[in-house]
Formats: sequence, C-alpha cells, structure tokens
Amino acid sequence: MSFKLIEKHRSFGGEQCKYRHYSEVLHCEMTFSLYLPSNKEGKKIPLIWWLSGLTCTDDNFSQKSGFQRLAEKYQAAVMIPDTSPRGEHVADDEAWDLGQGAGFYLNATQEPWAKHYKMYSYITEELTAIASSLVPNFSGAESIMGHSMGGHGALVIGLKNAARFKAISAFAPISSPSQIPWGIKAFAAYLGEDKASWKEWDASELVKEAGMPPILITQGTQDEFYSKHLDETHFLNNARENNVEYNKVEGYDHSYFFIATFLEDHFAFHMKHLR
Amino acid sequence: MSFKLIEKHRSFGGEQCKYRHYSEVLHCEMTFSLYLPSNKEGKKIPLIWWLSGLTCTDDNFSQKSGFQRLAEKYQAAVMIPDTSPRGEHVADDEAWDLGQGAGFYLNATQEPWAKHYKMYSYITEELTAIASSLVPNFSGAESIMGHSMGGHGALVIGLKNAARFKAISAFAPISSPSQIPWGIKAFAAYLGEDKASWKEWDASELVKEAGMPPILITQGTQDEFYSKHLDETHFLNNARENNVEYNKVEGYDHSYFFIATFLEDHFAFHMKHLR
Repeated sequence: MSFKLIEKHRSFGGEQCKYRHYSEVLHCEMTFSLYLPSNKEGKKIPLIWWLSGLTCTDDNFSQKSGFQRLAEKYQAAVMIPDTSPRGEHVADDEAWDLGQGAGFYLNATQEPWAKHYKMYSYITEELTAIASSLVPNFSGAESIMGHSMGGHGALVIGLKNAARFKAISAFAPISSPSQIPWGIKAFAAYLGEDKASWKEWDASELVKEAGMPPILITQGTQDEFYSKHLDETHFLNNARENNVEYNKVEGYDHSYFFIATFLEDHFAFHMKHLR
Repeated sequence: MSFKLIEKHRSFGGEQCKYRHYSEVLHCEMTFSLYLPSNKEGKKIPLIWWLSGLTCTDDNFSQKSGFQRLAEKYQAAVMIPDTSPRGEHVADDEAWDLGQGAGFYLNATQEPWAKHYKMYSYITEELTAIASSLVPNFSGAESIMGHSMGGHGALVIGLKNAARFKAISAFAPISSPSQIPWGIKAFAAYLGEDKASWKEWDASELVKEAGMPPILITQGTQDEFYSKHLDETHFLNNARENNVEYNKVEGYDHSYFFIATFLEDHFAFHMKHLR
C-alpha cells in the first residue's frame, strides 16, 4: 500500500490533500482527495465519504462545494474518490455516461469492463485501508454521502454495509437505477442483461431490508435530470423502515450551486449520527 | 445597452446569473456573472465588485469561492467581470500573463492592444450602467475586492474612484505593479516604455493621495508568487493615511482554498462600510 501526496492546500484551518497511487484492485493509477480538519484539540475524528456524479473527478467536490468550512466546523475528515478507473489502457466509451467518469460504484462482471471497473471493492476495501492510515486520530466512525450517480453509490455502499456506515445522504440521487435510462445502460454494460444480477446494486432493492442506516435525501425541483433519471417514488415505496427523510427544495437544479446550499444540513445530519 | 441571460442557478436562496453582451467599449462579446441575494425583505441592497486574477474568467470566483453564502447572509449583490476582452479577433499573446485573461484592468494605449484592452472604462462605465439596471433595489453603495491581478484592479479602480467605492479589499494583490515582473511586462506592453504613464495604474502611487477608502489586504505566507510579485513593502510605505489593514495568514497559498477561507472577513469589512 503506497501513495504519493501530490497537492496540499491549507483550507479553513485544515489541509486539503490530493494523492496518487497504483490501485491493485482497479489495475491503474488513481487520484483521490482527502480533507483533514485542524483537530486542534487532538480528539478522535470521524470520516465522511463523498461520491461524485457522472463526468466528475475528485476535484469537483473539493473545488466547488465549499465543504471544507463544514468539515473544519464539525471536525470531520472527508475522503473523495474518483468516479471510475482511469487511463489509456482502461476500457472506455464515447458517451459521457458510460466508462471513464461513470463507474457507478459497482463491480463489473462483463467484458470489456470486468478487469478495471471494480469501484465497489476499491472504495470499501483498498481505499478504506488507505484512509485508515491517513486520518490521524480516526474514531472509526464512518458515514457516506454523494451526488447523482454518487448518490446512487452512497446509497448502495451504505445499505450494503449497514453496520459500518452510521448515516447515508444524497443530493439528487439515482435511487432506482434498474428503472431509469442512465442505470439501465450502465448495468446492462457492466453486469449483463440478466436483471437478477442488478438487484444487489440497486438501492431501491437494498432498502427493503431491515436495520438500515438513517438516510437523508435532498432534491431540487428545477433539476433538469429529475423526471427521466431521479424519480424517488419507487425507492420510497420500497423503503421498509421509516428512516428516510426526503426533502424537495424549490427552484434548485442539479449543479454544485444546489449542493453547496444544502451541504450544511447534510453535515449536521451526519454528525448527529457519527458522534 | 443589451445583454442576454445565459445561465441562472438558485444558490443559497438567491440567484447566480451569467450574461453575454456586446461591449461597445471593448469591441467584442463579453460574459459576466452577477449574484442577486433573495432580498426577502425588499430592502435597498449594495453592490460588491469582484475582480479575478490572471487566467481567470468570471467562473472562477462564482464556482470556487463559496461567496454566495456570504452575499445572501449580508444581502449584497456581487458583480464579477471577465479579466480581459475575448475572441479570435482580439489581440493576444502566447504567454498566460499577457493578453486574453490578463487585461490588468487598465486602458491600453499601445498597439496591438489599444483597440480592445480598455478594461478600466469597461468596468467603471459600461458594466456599471448594466449593473445599475440589473440590481433591483440597488442602494447605490458600492465597494470592490479582488485577487492577485484582480487585487491590483480593485486597488487601482477603488483608489481612482475614491468617492464612489466605500471600501476596497484584496487577496494577495499585485500592489506595486511597476516594480514586479508581471506588472512591468504588462505595463510595458499596454502602456509603453515611458514609466510616467504607469503611475496612474499603480496602486502604490495612487495610495499617496489623501481621502482614500479603507483598505483590507490578506496575504498567505505560503503563496508561491509572493516574493517575486506580491511584496507589500513599497505599497504600505507609500500609503499616506492609516487606513490599510494588512494581514498575513500562516500556511495559506495563492489558491481559491485561501480565498474561500478568508472571504467572510472581507465581506464583513465591506458591509461595515456599505451600510
């Protein structure tokens, strides 16, 4: 396990860091970002994972959300993976919603994707071990949040690891990927046509189980992708327990302007469950 | 005077807008951004100008600073011009510190720059008239802030219009352009070799006058451009009145992570003088 610090910026008293490493799981060089709060009091600090949406890298959230103010305020470390394996030798597609930048946080089983597209194992195993070694005074408490495709990722990873993640939240998530065009296209490519194999990567299936972490979802009413890709009805109908808070916010779209506006609510929700 | 709204995003309750227009002063199409707070109480609101640094457009501050939270909190409109004239027919240079993206907020007199590079007149006249028409319930009170080359712009425009701007602030500004490489190169190109003509565009000369607005400057100690381009000694020595607050902040660099961290201090400073 080795990694190289390639950028470090002081930000709101803490440090915004960027690392490169060779991923044994993805078989390629990867970049991730990590924020460490100042932790002036030397306390145990929790770790919040952020998963980004289609076309993003770890830079979008680091540069556009203003999250560092909140991570320092609440004294939480924040880990930001990339959204897919990367590189010239890694399978890709001309479309922006498949291949590089569109890993969908699952483990692909189909060619040409199966060798590299194992974002689920990368995040829950390899990057988890790295995070543990990079966060000083880590309390062991973790939660996960994300946006759009990354909202799908946060829901799936959080629900599949209900004992590990204390809270899940999402901005405008793909909550029923097997039912909407982005998800159907990606699942067919990465997992094949047999829809039985899709269920373990579909939050609207996973949420049927008992004992799931508390979930907060925020969705803008002016989101250009809402009607086609982000409808929540199926997901909410399937939720077994009364642990999903779903909020619609008037006039907001799908952009980081929307995320930045409501990020403080999400941090407060996570910290309530992480302490 | 005509302009076209090309983007609008709800952000922290207000609206982040982006416009295109043909500038009669610059003889080219230009883009600018404007934030309007929600103004739920229907009060008179002030206008803060933001001037960006080398290589930036109006997007950098809009997307990376998180300023919308503060503009809404303090109920101020914020106007963000581009950093130079733009377009294929507009003179340019291969270097990133001259030509497009590097207008230095002055009125050029030399060829091939004189036709288009009139950023001073563009901002203080043409864009001022547009801003007045776009800000509802405008109180008439204005102030100006900026970063690096835009810090130079804020100081020069603020000091040359001391009766108009109630406060000036800057992050890591070029405060003595006639003395440092970026400024010498740009002034020689835009204004010619006669250094007498440089004085009216040099904040360290303008600050010798009496009756200047209050000035706040914040500078990071890890700024990679500090020693070569941003030294404050000459500027502070020339300041006639005791109205400059100059703060060095430990460990911060030249990036938007630095700006975002200290932007609330600058907004508070401006609002104290704008009310």
